[in-house]
Amino acid sequence: MKLTVKEVKEIFKPKLLPIIWRDETNTLTILDQSLLPFQTVYVDLKDVETTASAIKNMQVRGAPAIGITAGYGMVLALRNDRIQNLNDALKELTRAKSILDSARPTAINLAWATSRMLNFAKNAIENGEAKSLNELIHLMKIEAKRIFDEEYEAEILMGLYGLEKINNGDTILTQCNAGGLATGTGLGTALAPVKLAKALGIDVSVIAPETRPWLQGSRLTVYELMAEGIKVTLITDTAVGLVMYKGMVNGVMVGADRILRDGHVFNKIGTFKEAVIAHELGVPFYVLAPTSSFDLKSDVTDIKIEERDPNEVRTIKGIPIAPENVNVYNPVFDVTPPKYITAIITEKGIIYPPFNENVKKIVER
Amino acid sequence: MKLTVKEVKEIFKPKLLPIIWRDETNTLTILDQSLLPFQTVYVDLKDVETTASAIKNMQVRGAPAIGITAGYGMVLALRNDRIQNLNDALKELTRAKSILDSARPTAINLAWATSRMLNFAKNAIENGEAKSLNELIHLMKIEAKRIFDEEYEAEILMGLYGLEKINNGDTILTQCNAGGLATGTGLGTALAPVKLAKALGIDVSVIAPETRPWLQGSRLTVYELMAEGIKVTLITDTAVGLVMYKGMVNGVMVGADRILRDGHVFNKIGTFKEAVIAHELGVPFYVLAPTSSFDLKSDVTDIKIEERDPNEVRTIKGIPIAPENVNVYNPVFDVTPPKYITAIITEKGIIYPPFNENVKKIVER
Repeated sequence: MKLTVKEVKEIFKPKLLPIIWRDETNTLTILDQSLLPFQTVYVDLKDVETTASAIKNMQVRGAPAIGITAGYGMVLALRNDRIQNLNDALKELTRAKSILDSARPTAINLAWATSRMLNFAKNAIENGEAKSLNELIHLMKIEAKRIFDEEYEAEILMGLYGLEKINNGDTILTQCNAGGLATGTGLGTALAPVKLAKALGIDVSVIAPETRPWLQGSRLTVYELMAEGIKVTLITDTAVGLVMYKGMVNGVMVGADRILRDGHVFNKIGTFKEAVIAHELGVPFYVLAPTSSFDLKSDVTDIKIEERDPNEVRTIKGIPIAPENVNVYNPVFDVTPPKYITAIITEKGIIYPPFNENVKKIVER
Repeated sequence: MKLTVKEVKEIFKPKLLPIIWRDETNTLTILDQSLLPFQTVYVDLKDVETTASAIKNMQVRGAPAIGITAGYGMVLALRNDRIQNLNDALKELTRAKSILDSARPTAINLAWATSRMLNFAKNAIENGEAKSLNELIHLMKIEAKRIFDEEYEAEILMGLYGLEKINNGDTILTQCNAGGLATGTGLGTALAPVKLAKALGIDVSVIAPETRPWLQGSRLTVYELMAEGIKVTLITDTAVGLVMYKGMVNGVMVGADRILRDGHVFNKIGTFKEAVIAHELGVPFYVLAPTSSFDLKSDVTDIKIEERDPNEVRTIKGIPIAPENVNVYNPVFDVTPPKYITAIITEKGIIYPPFNENVKKIVER
């Protein structure tokens, strides 16, 4: 069964939409992820300032979701009475980019999206496609939607490739939240295949580890899958080995923050242990990520593993769970060597070992 | 350097004593473990009822610690004005055993210790060693101390055998709390070698995973090692793989709930993943447990893995961290196959593979 992106868009409609743009009213509405999973609250973002603070306060989170939100934030910048002409518009967009970029300086997708929108506006004005403010707003809305659509369509393609690895009755183990909340589309990367499977009537369920210290598994993945009506079981991170040992897992599907040309995968802390155990027990281990996540230049030793605040481990939701002065090592991600990875699934196709030959072939396709 | 148990008792004095018996006043004082790591509070137990409730309320926990406490609880039973003669004493001990045993019906060491004390009293009266209530109390105190001493001496022997596996400058990864809090002696099983190493001036440090869902790592292991002045670093369970990948770990030392004759080890959930990763990365993986933990009759398929309340995963310290109706799988322990185990360290010696030959030789020595 080979489906096209268009056919999938007909068959699968996300029940959970983290980012909604309303063309009629030019408003951006986001699901406040900082309140999940306990409250489902949507917030209207009417200007650049509220958009920036939503990004800053983690009401919207996940690299692609932040990019999409920032793209629309640049459209909102043009809803401003101070703007009299296209020159004003460019000034306002420059100011908006600076406000948005500083909301989370380390989020690469953020500056990428605002630069894309600003350059698009400059070009549209220069080449005469936008001759008025209204025309510029119209084109900018299309461009912001394009950022969303490109992300969504890449996820659909990853979902379709991933679907080839899922059989009826399978249970998939994941890690962290590589779902539609993180990407902003409602589909996701690692969770795309199970969502498409469900939409196609394939019986599939998910095991989600809670993923300390941030608990993205218990807070987000579980919430998202329950919203889509997909069977999900929450486990502690300590139980990851046992569920595979007991044969409860048919495959592992995780996302990636960065993939190197030789197939080393940097992803949320805890990914490596799943990969090693899966490899040892013969469970297929798949990484799902768009080709934009590949870093073809760096070697594994070039990448520094970021460490975060020790209090994330000493406390949960602000409640102390360990001696306040205990020494802590709190790395954000880990690295999985290529030998433990069955395949890397991208929107351009499935990459199999040997990765040092095949990554380049697919990514530069 | 071969030390005797007696020499170790001179060199190592636990700074943290979870169970203290005072002979002058016939009082039992315990460290209230339910308040750890935030408050260090000692509680006097003056009779059977308060001893039973301390066991029930997890103020004292860990199989050997419960056994030692129950042994002294049987001595406390004899501090009772109703007892006029040795016959009354036996009645009171029978009543005390029943009260203590029901405090935690699944704790095997509890009924084992109360039975031992009751049978000891019967024999002492029968064979004329105890001719008066005072004589009985005197002998029962010696027997309760013998339970403590046997445990402590077994731990010292395990510590000495384990010490052979520790080099100056080593870092040991553990799991859960297999320390002196769990055993009641202040020494422990898996933590005994590092404590003896420290006492002997060997530079050693420990990495402790927090061990969800109960957080014994962050609550107990870290507290215990800090109290002994041993360098300890707390990590999330997700970081177990990375610390080994980065070469931060020279050996893994864990306890065991049950060990089978072929070397399968049942221990706290999360042990299996450490074993697989250690095996894969060439890090030695040691299990430390007294020979009383061996089950030479069962096969691995005979042992049912206990599951506990899903709310342990949905909440932390009573605070919700996941949707309240999410499906949860919450196994208490996992099973580590013998191929991942470098050696099993007991008070009778170190057992090396092949375990199906060597376990019996050492355990039945």
